[in-house]
Amino acid sequence: MISVYSPKEFTKRFISKKTKKQPFAESTVKTVQSIIENVRQNGDIALQGYMEKFDGGAPKNLVVTKEERKAAWEEVPTDVVEALQKAAKNIRSFHSKQLQQSRMMEVTEEVISGQLFRPIERVGIYVPGGKACYPSSVLMNAIPAVLAGVSQLVMVTPAKAGKIAPILSVAADIAGVQTIYKVGGAQAIAALAYGTESIEPVDKIVGPGNEYVAAAKSLVFGDVGIDMIAGPSEVAVIADETARPKFVAADLIAQAEHDEKARAFLFTTSEQLLNETIVELKKQCASLSRREIAETSLKNEGGAILVESVDAAFNLVNQLAPEHLEIQIANALSYLGKVKNAGSVFIGHHTPESVGDYFAGPNHVLPTSGTARFSSGLSADDFMKKTTYVYYSEQALQHAAPYIERIAEKEELAGHGRAVAIRMNDISE
Amino acid sequence: MISVYSPKEFTKRFISKKTKKQPFAESTVKTVQSIIENVRQNGDIALQGYMEKFDGGAPKNLVVTKEERKAAWEEVPTDVVEALQKAAKNIRSFHSKQLQQSRMMEVTEEVISGQLFRPIERVGIYVPGGKACYPSSVLMNAIPAVLAGVSQLVMVTPAKAGKIAPILSVAADIAGVQTIYKVGGAQAIAALAYGTESIEPVDKIVGPGNEYVAAAKSLVFGDVGIDMIAGPSEVAVIADETARPKFVAADLIAQAEHDEKARAFLFTTSEQLLNETIVELKKQCASLSRREIAETSLKNEGGAILVESVDAAFNLVNQLAPEHLEIQIANALSYLGKVKNAGSVFIGHHTPESVGDYFAGPNHVLPTSGTARFSSGLSADDFMKKTTYVYYSEQALQHAAPYIERIAEKEELAGHGRAVAIRMNDISE
Repeated sequence: MISVYSPKEFTKRFISKKTKKQPFAESTVKTVQSIIENVRQNGDIALQGYMEKFDGGAPKNLVVTKEERKAAWEEVPTDVVEALQKAAKNIRSFHSKQLQQSRMMEVTEEVISGQLFRPIERVGIYVPGGKACYPSSVLMNAIPAVLAGVSQLVMVTPAKAGKIAPILSVAADIAGVQTIYKVGGAQAIAALAYGTESIEPVDKIVGPGNEYVAAAKSLVFGDVGIDMIAGPSEVAVIADETARPKFVAADLIAQAEHDEKARAFLFTTSEQLLNETIVELKKQCASLSRREIAETSLKNEGGAILVESVDAAFNLVNQLAPEHLEIQIANALSYLGKVKNAGSVFIGHHTPESVGDYFAGPNHVLPTSGTARFSSGLSADDFMKKTTYVYYSEQALQHAAPYIERIAEKEELAGHGRAVAIRMNDISE
Repeated sequence: MISVYSPKEFTKRFISKKTKKQPFAESTVKTVQSIIENVRQNGDIALQGYMEKFDGGAPKNLVVTKEERKAAWEEVPTDVVEALQKAAKNIRSFHSKQLQQSRMMEVTEEVISGQLFRPIERVGIYVPGGKACYPSSVLMNAIPAVLAGVSQLVMVTPAKAGKIAPILSVAADIAGVQTIYKVGGAQAIAALAYGTESIEPVDKIVGPGNEYVAAAKSLVFGDVGIDMIAGPSEVAVIADETARPKFVAADLIAQAEHDEKARAFLFTTSEQLLNETIVELKKQCASLSRREIAETSLKNEGGAILVESVDAAFNLVNQLAPEHLEIQIANALSYLGKVKNAGSVFIGHHTPESVGDYFAGPNHVLPTSGTARFSSGLSADDFMKKTTYVYYSEQALQHAAPYIERIAEKEELAGHGRAVAIRMNDISE
């Protein structure tokens, strides 16, 4: 079951040595480079080739039609539709409060300056379509884009025998995705980045995918924007003696069931809670459908750490910078100020991570592998650009001229200074 | 002199074919990888080796001392200090208005959720120290970090014979940089990312550098945050018949003098202005200290384009997504709403780009090579992280439980559903 570490052991194993990020395997990069090149050269024909090879045939029309999207609703149970709609409403409400307005930093008679907020024009969302499919991922990626004002929002997802998963189509409708293309894999990323006859190129690509998709995203980055390359999912639970062992265990398991590399950590001030949680982990794993995955993950990548104080727990957690942090201690909300580095925080005994994964409103696309030290989860900001602007009157420039010219001279860029000087006293004539 | 294109030719050459980003030369990457590995393994000893090889000797103490920083002030003319202080004041004022506050998206009796804004804890600024040195770059990178609340702000810059450029030290004092280390190159990036005996590792690295520095930044990205890898500098000038040819020419030259790859474009509705600007370009280049660079850049990378209307000009510019955009037309401010993609905008006949490069307040670290379609210039946001949080009461969870469980079931993640169910009805017992 879950490995037990002292704080020192934990630090040594999980924090001190920065986990060097895994670059993609050379063979993966080579494969993906050739796919991208093929799509750039041959467009739709290249896509069709890959679909025949991997997806059991190439549909004549890459676009999911209106009729197909309508028909998908018949295939999804009403109560699931209702759940997705409720979730979408919460996600919309939360993200709508992130929207910033264009503003002025200065408005005088002589100077006007500020920041414009503008939506990114075209965004593509990648949605995996393997065995399990994730409608929540459609909502989390699409809704902030719609709110930001993205004017062309498209989605790509692989079809099986010409058909995409109905629940993904329904989620796309709920979220406001305009066009869905039946294409997946690295070739879909290449098509979004560079365009084909059927697919217009976008300005930014978001959404999770397998190793090939991730490598493709990292290779097209710069030509288009991307969200982030996610590592294994993580949770850290800080718990005191008021926490319920079976709640804590269930939350650690919910993380561990993702895959063998997922990381679930418990930091607790209570030895009793630690021991009882281990008992609960055994009991709950026994009846879990993804038991083997969860047990492997807990043993190899997870950890239970007994700490001297809540402060000591926060100190370790802030160094770890986990994707998800649960605070299951008395007066949990009052500890919010201690959080320095975390993707998203779940507070109190009745806020398991799944509340946020699916429903409450905050985004579930979050920084992993310690990157919460310097980056943030997906938000409406990720679908907007900030453009600064400045207007100077002739008089304002006159006031500023000597300072600008002095700095330009010092930096040995005479032309920079002259662009000011020439406006002041006609030096070029 | 500057090449003249039709709109169609311009589109074909500069927009249609997305300029594939230049990956770093393989030999550069190999060299930089070995430098990074050496610094990770050998710390300060590795740094000393590189300094002896490249910087004419290794200083015993890597830190610029208080005495050295004080002495630097004696070496910088008072009027230059004054110019930097005025610029710093404007930059501080502009960026202080970007600061966002932690907020609540929802506060009911049952649910509390929101976003925390937290400064990145440790930031390192790279400052080149070659022939020309750029105090403006110190101000532009450091001031937003200080305002965001970064608690450890350090700077690295190469020393010559143990001494760094005095003006960089003074700029660091003005901006609020705490510690300056005498080290440059890829080894400085490695030291900031992974730490050595003398240098504490940081969470994010910003600032411009040569090819080796840029490659090092891209290699350590993921273990630390970075700002961006900048391409050649660019300006687009939109001008009508009210524009003054010599102002326009001076601004194009100010861009072109950066380096041979810099791009300066003029879009104008006036053939007369176009012709007179070309005459002015010749005249002004003749007396420019960096004449050859500017002329090469204008000819190979620049362009003058006669357009049918101001709208046509904005259409081309929005597709180009230039780093800098100047609007030199009548009623220039009223055209601000037409800007969709640009790093920073300079409005009117008396706002040359150098106003923003040095003085007005907006940042001069801006997206290049068309990346303004999906990214933004440096701002206080780049030194903060957004952490979402959510608290649910037992009752709130009860309301949400059926929806969460339905989605979890559909996504085949039973443990996610159970983390909710177990809190509702003790199913594990």
